[in-house]
Amino acid sequence: MPSIDRRALIGAASLALAGSAARAAPEPSAPPAGPAAARDVTRTLARYVVDARFEDLPEPVRREGTRTFLNWVGVAIGGSHHETLDVAVAALQPFSGPPQAGLFGRSERFDIMNAAFLNGVSSHIFDYDDTHLKTVIHPAGPVASAILALAEMRPVSGRDFLNALVLGVETECRIGNAVYPNHYDVGWHITGTAGVFGAAAAAGRLMGLTEQQMVWALGLAASQPVGLRESFGSMNKSFNPGRAATNGLFAAILASKNYTSSDGMIEAKRGWANTISTKQDYREITEGLGSRYEAALNTYKPFACGIVMHPAIDAAVQLRNENRLTPDQIRRVDLKVHPLVLELTGKTAPRSGLEGKFSIYHAVAVALVEGAGGEKQFSDRAVRDPVIAALRGKVVPTVTPGVKPEQVEMTITLADGRTLSRQIEHAVGSVENPMTDADLERKFVDLAEGILPDAQIRRVMALCWDIANLKDAGDVARAGVQV
Amino acid sequence: MPSIDRRALIGAASLALAGSAARAAPEPSAPPAGPAAARDVTRTLARYVVDARFEDLPEPVRREGTRTFLNWVGVAIGGSHHETLDVAVAALQPFSGPPQAGLFGRSERFDIMNAAFLNGVSSHIFDYDDTHLKTVIHPAGPVASAILALAEMRPVSGRDFLNALVLGVETECRIGNAVYPNHYDVGWHITGTAGVFGAAAAAGRLMGLTEQQMVWALGLAASQPVGLRESFGSMNKSFNPGRAATNGLFAAILASKNYTSSDGMIEAKRGWANTISTKQDYREITEGLGSRYEAALNTYKPFACGIVMHPAIDAAVQLRNENRLTPDQIRRVDLKVHPLVLELTGKTAPRSGLEGKFSIYHAVAVALVEGAGGEKQFSDRAVRDPVIAALRGKVVPTVTPGVKPEQVEMTITLADGRTLSRQIEHAVGSVENPMTDADLERKFVDLAEGILPDAQIRRVMALCWDIANLKDAGDVARAGVQV
Repeated sequence: MPSIDRRALIGAASLALAGSAARAAPEPSAPPAGPAAARDVTRTLARYVVDARFEDLPEPVRREGTRTFLNWVGVAIGGSHHETLDVAVAALQPFSGPPQAGLFGRSERFDIMNAAFLNGVSSHIFDYDDTHLKTVIHPAGPVASAILALAEMRPVSGRDFLNALVLGVETECRIGNAVYPNHYDVGWHITGTAGVFGAAAAAGRLMGLTEQQMVWALGLAASQPVGLRESFGSMNKSFNPGRAATNGLFAAILASKNYTSSDGMIEAKRGWANTISTKQDYREITEGLGSRYEAALNTYKPFACGIVMHPAIDAAVQLRNENRLTPDQIRRVDLKVHPLVLELTGKTAPRSGLEGKFSIYHAVAVALVEGAGGEKQFSDRAVRDPVIAALRGKVVPTVTPGVKPEQVEMTITLADGRTLSRQIEHAVGSVENPMTDADLERKFVDLAEGILPDAQIRRVMALCWDIANLKDAGDVARAGVQV
Repeated sequence: MPSIDRRALIGAASLALAGSAARAAPEPSAPPAGPAAARDVTRTLARYVVDARFEDLPEPVRREGTRTFLNWVGVAIGGSHHETLDVAVAALQPFSGPPQAGLFGRSERFDIMNAAFLNGVSSHIFDYDDTHLKTVIHPAGPVASAILALAEMRPVSGRDFLNALVLGVETECRIGNAVYPNHYDVGWHITGTAGVFGAAAAAGRLMGLTEQQMVWALGLAASQPVGLRESFGSMNKSFNPGRAATNGLFAAILASKNYTSSDGMIEAKRGWANTISTKQDYREITEGLGSRYEAALNTYKPFACGIVMHPAIDAAVQLRNENRLTPDQIRRVDLKVHPLVLELTGKTAPRSGLEGKFSIYHAVAVALVEGAGGEKQFSDRAVRDPVIAALRGKVVPTVTPGVKPEQVEMTITLADGRTLSRQIEHAVGSVENPMTDADLERKFVDLAEGILPDAQIRRVMALCWDIANLKDAGDVARAGVQV
């Protein structure tokens, strides 16, 4: 007979139940144990999440948390009638539990785990949500989807809600920092893998888990990473933050009844970080908790496309608005760009809104015509508009040494021979040049228009801005459904 | 400002929606593309799962599928009143959908996704389930839990059910083969990671998915791996096959409504195998479909402990039964063993049933006294029995060069000076010396006794043996609940 593999010999039961004896066994193909710093990482994080008070959050962190929440509600409403969500709603309705929570922009109600999934999907459909640029995590989807559903079922104050939101975002971004970029490079969709921890932490905090229960919740979260980059371009991408929200909620719910896990699931030799990444920097998770906030570094997209085109769109919108340009005035648009712009968005003749997201020619043309770069500007309608199509033939991007990816230099030559120029160092929406509150409101309205009545849109936005003062955070969810 | 990372620049939207443009971009830290063989792996597997007919299954494969099913029902009943399941049931009850499916050995009913989870947990609690020795996957848990719940809701014939069960087991074991051992060594609990595919394939087959829908179901399954080895020893271990069952079912349900994924989620550059393992052998997945069956290699544990102790227990039971030994007759028990036996199971004075699973001294003593090695022999009661405790002091294992892990040589010295010897080459339960049908029945009864009445146990077993002929496979589920 062939020699039985040693793992088979050890046997599932032994592996399952082995204490130090089994773990001490030599395992030649195992990864090296982590550095000495890798002690109590999960517990340290759990303790912080359980103990941190709203009162301790610096004002800028509260403010960014509020902006994160408002932006998320807007994109969740915006995606709510996309085919992706229609399909998911139809598929899951026969299995849903009690109608505990609503869906933004829709009228159906689901149990909280399904509602968290569906709002999470909805908020990522346009890829127009928030971004933690250091890790490309979209933080709000997994966290806010989980806890807003929970808040509809078990009322919590807006203060507690906002505190939990910030702690969840902090958790996922710190864990993401610890393994980025290796973890992302190899193929994981980090929003779905780190996001589960954020959802578990935030939901667990709102449920009042003890430190030990939070350790278990993080352990059960570690057991359920979601998402591979290969799925990008399909409905599976927006699936990932949605499922991360559900998985984190599921973990917290089980842990709240003392469903156990290991105590060191993040840092142990065969725990999450060693299994899922070739880089582990645990200081990113445990150092400066309560003093530096990743949650304060969140950014919001002003344009519904990849960040590489944002400087050019920003320049186009500025020149158009300042000069009241009309398409017939424009003879030629020269752009000095970084090589990535043509590598990634070089489609000269896009045929659909989706393809428009990969055309610097379309992005500049539509921004010059309509003064915006929202989801409507990357629709089939916009791409097929003859005026916009004609204008994109006049856009001439040139790869130019010395131009950084976050920069652009645009020169518009007018029919009368005049030229207009604009150099962008940091596009709107970057950390250095963030979207203003007014920008976020315009984006929100743009996404929600046609889905909810104007007065309702205003009311939902007002509740979002006021989240820290609400008696019942679930009011936001109830205010955002289709009635 | 710090230079923005290129991944941030590409932007989530671009990554999400990029076609060939973004994928063609050079990515220095990416893993090398797979070999040319890595084409259409997901689709080839999907086509097989969609097309394979029950009539094409060789008789030995049907028979092993039936044994797999019976063994799984037995362990699921056996675990049904463990604290782990009590906790999970209590946690999930408030969120469950319609009472679509039952739990073995219990009276509660849940929607099929929660029922699949709970039966999957229950069947793995004692680590006494089936084992595909080449990968240490426990195949039945994820697959049978998913499709039996489904069968309760949407009636299917026993033939279709057994066919789907075999196809699901085949799917997960082949995918496991492709990445084992690297994938397991690094820290994944392969039952939960490969198991999701098995559940999705089997559930998708019963739901009548088209080939394209099956491709998507496998893609959504690939997005939801479950389980890390660090959790072994906690309730989180049995969580893994349960959650794998739910995740696979969830994937199939969404795909059935045309929720899309990528077409090559298993084999693509940033797909499952490249992301989750440093070894990929896609031939294990695609070669010999319909002619060689991993599902025929399933094994069942006769003893509720790690396989490393099985030869010694087997020898002890044989010598006891053949010689009608009583404890007072035994002066000393010598064992020649492989080093792993002492490395993994060297506890001389276990204090609990759980610790007894890691004591070769206890395992041999209890087998000599009670003639078995079931869950009851690894209980607190057994470990604390004074007769058994005294006898384990007489067990003397000696690491002996030349003894293979699957072997043992036992010599019992009796009080009257006589010696009895037995050499084991392949313990009962191995591929070479499988459990007989009668063995499986004894194991089943042992697990179910005290949970269901004897007549009901007999009836459930009879339905399991007859699965291929049942008009409605869901009858097994309905027959196995507590009434």
